[in-house]
Amino acid sequence: MRKVVLTGDRPTGRLHLGHYVGSLQNRIKLQNENQQYIMVADIQALTDNVERVGVVSKNIVEIVKDYLAVGLIPEQNCIFLQSCISAIAELSILFLNMVNISRLERNPTVKEEIKKKYRSGNVPAGFLCYPVSQAADILAFGSDIIPVGSDQLPMIEQTNEIARKFSRLYKKGVLKEVTPLLGTVSRLPGIDGKNKMGKSLNNAIYLSDSDDDICKKVLSMFTDPDHIKVSDPGKVDGNVVFAYMDVFFQNKEELESMKAHYKKGGLGDTVIKNILSKVLIDLISPMREKRETISDEYVLSLLSCGTSAARKVADNTLIEVKKAMGMFRL
Amino acid sequence: MRKVVLTGDRPTGRLHLGHYVGSLQNRIKLQNENQQYIMVADIQALTDNVERVGVVSKNIVEIVKDYLAVGLIPEQNCIFLQSCISAIAELSILFLNMVNISRLERNPTVKEEIKKKYRSGNVPAGFLCYPVSQAADILAFGSDIIPVGSDQLPMIEQTNEIARKFSRLYKKGVLKEVTPLLGTVSRLPGIDGKNKMGKSLNNAIYLSDSDDDICKKVLSMFTDPDHIKVSDPGKVDGNVVFAYMDVFFQNKEELESMKAHYKKGGLGDTVIKNILSKVLIDLISPMREKRETISDEYVLSLLSCGTSAARKVADNTLIEVKKAMGMFRL
Repeated sequence: MRKVVLTGDRPTGRLHLGHYVGSLQNRIKLQNENQQYIMVADIQALTDNVERVGVVSKNIVEIVKDYLAVGLIPEQNCIFLQSCISAIAELSILFLNMVNISRLERNPTVKEEIKKKYRSGNVPAGFLCYPVSQAADILAFGSDIIPVGSDQLPMIEQTNEIARKFSRLYKKGVLKEVTPLLGTVSRLPGIDGKNKMGKSLNNAIYLSDSDDDICKKVLSMFTDPDHIKVSDPGKVDGNVVFAYMDVFFQNKEELESMKAHYKKGGLGDTVIKNILSKVLIDLISPMREKRETISDEYVLSLLSCGTSAARKVADNTLIEVKKAMGMFRL
Repeated sequence: MRKVVLTGDRPTGRLHLGHYVGSLQNRIKLQNENQQYIMVADIQALTDNVERVGVVSKNIVEIVKDYLAVGLIPEQNCIFLQSCISAIAELSILFLNMVNISRLERNPTVKEEIKKKYRSGNVPAGFLCYPVSQAADILAFGSDIIPVGSDQLPMIEQTNEIARKFSRLYKKGVLKEVTPLLGTVSRLPGIDGKNKMGKSLNNAIYLSDSDDDICKKVLSMFTDPDHIKVSDPGKVDGNVVFAYMDVFFQNKEELESMKAHYKKGGLGDTVIKNILSKVLIDLISPMREKRETISDEYVLSLLSCGTSAARKVADNTLIEVKKAMGMFRL
């Protein structure tokens, strides 16, 4: 049966390999059989970027190009711009009344992000509350399945809590609970090996990177600091190059033999890095080439159509929500 | 020069004398010379009433009847319903990113309300954030003057902070700071003498009360507990009846002589209560009579027209705000 799938990305930079294995691959798989909505989450991006609105605006077209480049088909996806759907803001404001501040403060993903980004007390209200807005995004479209990385599971939990509370307070069947679908790889490390791959950490390989960039980034990858001479035995665990090989190198048998060779000694970092570079170039270069054929005008018209279609659905949910709540209708 | 004035009330019950002296009198004065918007704040009412949506909906028509009954003239005021103005929700969501959680937690009025209403940690996010939504209400209409009670001054401060931050971050002149206008009486005690008059405290005299209700409520007013026999000297300070006489009895000279008499002894509570009853009946009964001539249909058409007009203004502000921020336009 056709399900409703919703995903989205903050347009704070181009998409990278972490997005690809974390969510985009699933979207490509899901697009044929389902009604898929893809949201360019510019409003959510502003929750921690009020001083960098220009960056957000600039990346909206870029991110849609990334979608099309990786193989998301325009006819099979409704790609829309969040800031143009007023019903999402209206639903967010209503749902904020159904969630306590202490519940928001307990969200583990938000908690971790706050620890990284803000001195205590300096957290923008919009940032603490963004899981509620995300619930509004999800519930506005009657979503069934949300392809996510594991760090987004607490948002799904929050969404389902709101849906259940709404059913209990007002009416069943208006807002439905959703199922998360984890990516093939839930957490791809950045090339620094320290953090998850992230736009803001300067440790990402982008889906629009040139072959040269890819080579340079792979060469700079963290491996095993004790693997100094080629003949030294090397560690595979915690070695970023092998973490990527696990994800992107298809011949698993060959990979196992490479790992054994590396552990024993005699397989140089550069050799294995060259193999990885080739694998990633083979993956990314067709995306980059496709990307170059897509015009800004085409993206704008696509986004415009998608936004109109999405608006109708979200407006309808808002009407149903207000009706179920018993709100006054003028 | 014509100024823009905005006020509003949560439709959680009928309006009472506290509203009258705290804000309505000022609105009546201001309506001739200014562009006045009056908002039925049903969205704000929901911030602490998600479980009582029916009460809010039921009171929307009642509150508009109260407006007309006290002398607000339909042709001179734009009376509108908050929940039908999506731009307010959208502005609220944007402004939430410009205010820190710790700032919201320091708002003295919200702090006091939280202490009264919630166990710690049980505060709905929408309730803590409502001063930001209130800022959105105010800024959406380019307001100059806000007639308020003194407990609302922190909301005006928050609004002006957002306006200043917006000017600093993006562009001057899009959002302007507002001036509060305090009511003739900033805090009318309830008939219990313990609290400010409030809808939820069962201590209010409503603008739609019958003559009988008014008499009964005045008779039940807290006076001086040591003023037992008529001949006893009585206290005027902290005596609710005299607090009301100060506000509503026009002949100040006569009032002073009554106070002197009461203090000396020989003036009974009932005598003075009867005088107050008469004064309040003279004020309220014409309102009540006018109220009875107003049909629900008339209120609905008035609210509908006002909401359309208000929507245009708020939509325009949202467009200007997004433009100034440099948000993407589709």
